[in-house]
Amino acid sequence: MIDTLYEINEKAIKLENEGKKIIKLNIGDPDLETPSAIVEAAYEAMKKGKTKYGSSYGEKALREKLANIHGVSVDNVVLTPGSKWGVFATMYLMLKGDGNVVIPTPYWTAYELTAKTLGAKTRLLKTELDANWRIDVEKLERLIDGNTRMIILNNPNNPTSNVIDAEVLDGIVQIANEKKIPILSDEVYANISFVKTKSILDYDGNHIMVTGFSKMFTMTGWRIGYLVANKELVDQIAKLNQITFTNVPVFIQEAALKALEMHDQLTKGIKSEYQERAKIACEILSKARLEFSKPDAPFYVFPRRRGLDSERFALDLLDKGVAVAPGTAFGDYREHFRISLTAPKNEIATALNKICEALQ
Amino acid sequence: MIDTLYEINEKAIKLENEGKKIIKLNIGDPDLETPSAIVEAAYEAMKKGKTKYGSSYGEKALREKLANIHGVSVDNVVLTPGSKWGVFATMYLMLKGDGNVVIPTPYWTAYELTAKTLGAKTRLLKTELDANWRIDVEKLERLIDGNTRMIILNNPNNPTSNVIDAEVLDGIVQIANEKKIPILSDEVYANISFVKTKSILDYDGNHIMVTGFSKMFTMTGWRIGYLVANKELVDQIAKLNQITFTNVPVFIQEAALKALEMHDQLTKGIKSEYQERAKIACEILSKARLEFSKPDAPFYVFPRRRGLDSERFALDLLDKGVAVAPGTAFGDYREHFRISLTAPKNEIATALNKICEALQ
Repeated sequence: MIDTLYEINEKAIKLENEGKKIIKLNIGDPDLETPSAIVEAAYEAMKKGKTKYGSSYGEKALREKLANIHGVSVDNVVLTPGSKWGVFATMYLMLKGDGNVVIPTPYWTAYELTAKTLGAKTRLLKTELDANWRIDVEKLERLIDGNTRMIILNNPNNPTSNVIDAEVLDGIVQIANEKKIPILSDEVYANISFVKTKSILDYDGNHIMVTGFSKMFTMTGWRIGYLVANKELVDQIAKLNQITFTNVPVFIQEAALKALEMHDQLTKGIKSEYQERAKIACEILSKARLEFSKPDAPFYVFPRRRGLDSERFALDLLDKGVAVAPGTAFGDYREHFRISLTAPKNEIATALNKICEALQ
Repeated sequence: MIDTLYEINEKAIKLENEGKKIIKLNIGDPDLETPSAIVEAAYEAMKKGKTKYGSSYGEKALREKLANIHGVSVDNVVLTPGSKWGVFATMYLMLKGDGNVVIPTPYWTAYELTAKTLGAKTRLLKTELDANWRIDVEKLERLIDGNTRMIILNNPNNPTSNVIDAEVLDGIVQIANEKKIPILSDEVYANISFVKTKSILDYDGNHIMVTGFSKMFTMTGWRIGYLVANKELVDQIAKLNQITFTNVPVFIQEAALKALEMHDQLTKGIKSEYQERAKIACEILSKARLEFSKPDAPFYVFPRRRGLDSERFALDLLDKGVAVAPGTAFGDYREHFRISLTAPKNEIATALNKICEALQ
């Protein structure tokens, strides 16, 4: 399944190298540029000599700013090279031995791949488009057993762009707290969500929030994110950081601090751009009578066509100049495919029309 | 033991915050600046939009350059966030289960800490100043058993700055090849070594070389290094990269490529500066009749004073305005301490004189 994702990306690159134009809606890497104020902040920091080893927790000023934003103590914040490292490090520390992790699907493939490399078991809870991706709290409860070490939520979700209903989230947290199972909440899309999105940090309990600057500020390639959790876990992660990558480059942390200072200005533009893109995509998909849920957040639409073999479809679509991700990369969703709205509006319209044509 | 290292660093920072001047010779972070051509290359790359996701193997141009330097195929090279990640990733992939790793001491603490977090056993081979840190090949052979998954060599060595004799290295490689045990050779100081230093890549066999740009080009805080190994391991590491930190920022890779292009010019200055520092340090230490081996490479001297409790000594020395690392941080070496020559020459002279005074 994951192989198809790579196969598609490789074929897309190969076709591009042959001179063919491919509109790449298969990965979550925005076409937008990192705002120049962020680039300049990094450059200034480099010139000031912020090129030495730094703390494995992250720089004090940035941690303080993040602690303020989330209403926690500095001791609860640790910087990571992308939100992905927050996920990996938490799973690495919590899933040793014979632990299992409960994850609703469709889900981001990295969770499964990480569990696999750690030798941990995943217990998957399928959600469906027809129920608007609602997580069945009772079913989730039944998946938890004595070896369950954590629950992973991705809110808003990749690939559906669905935000978990507040009352569903209330229910999940209640069960997790009763059973003393920590929730790892991956909220990397939350800050630019189109709808109100509750954070795991709005609840009591021993939970973990990971997020990053990638999506929020178009800083994907900079590799900077952070994790908010209890001091004990933060300390353990800082120790793991110390023996793996040491620290996120300090000049990148200074750039991230600048981004936070300009937060409203920068994210407003990003959010409205993605809202327009989502609108265009939804209109075209509706006309072609594809089934899908309206995105609550930027980046992805995850439509379905009954009877579709999305792996075959995604490969064939490449020859028409469009790359998308097959639904099988996100769990048992062969009839779905994921469209990343990570191209300019005119290209999205062109690509979506080609997709609908191919499905005729 | 490792706690003393942190304790000393924290106390040093605390004293500095209180306004006291501390000459910090306790960590391997050079006082020199990253050359400005490297900073400018990073800035140019950022402005050109090299701020997107990149390959988990590293960028093609940089891998090609490194492959050329080492006379290997591009398939044998993978970029890492510092050489440390190369060490961690290799140990992570090779030491799962009940494996053990053979390591000569004194050794860099990260090896032990990594083995510990992975639940792997270390089998240590003590080397001694009196034998000029010579590794006893027969003893090493006897430490290898059916569960031995790898041997770690650090050449030149941290903390001794000793380079392994060519014939000793020949002997180690012969045994490793006979027993089919891969050697992980950490060669992060090799490129700026004062004496001819054989690389593990000079030998046949299924071995792994890790190194980085940190020491070579004064790029410690940039977090970029690389690993050279067989394609199978390189592919596994790229997969691990993909689910952990994704990629080293592309603009940092472009800066590293620039550094390689200016290699001779940049490393020459760095090497001669450290040679002068080492000379000054050796002169002062000799006068004070401390026992030590003359460094074969930049950065460290690891002197001994019979009967010394280096943990106590390092803590007391802080009050005199000098930070060093106790020998216990590198294995069973309580009578030794490590001096990092990572300060300007005049400060090194001042600090070394204070050290010798304190030992009267």
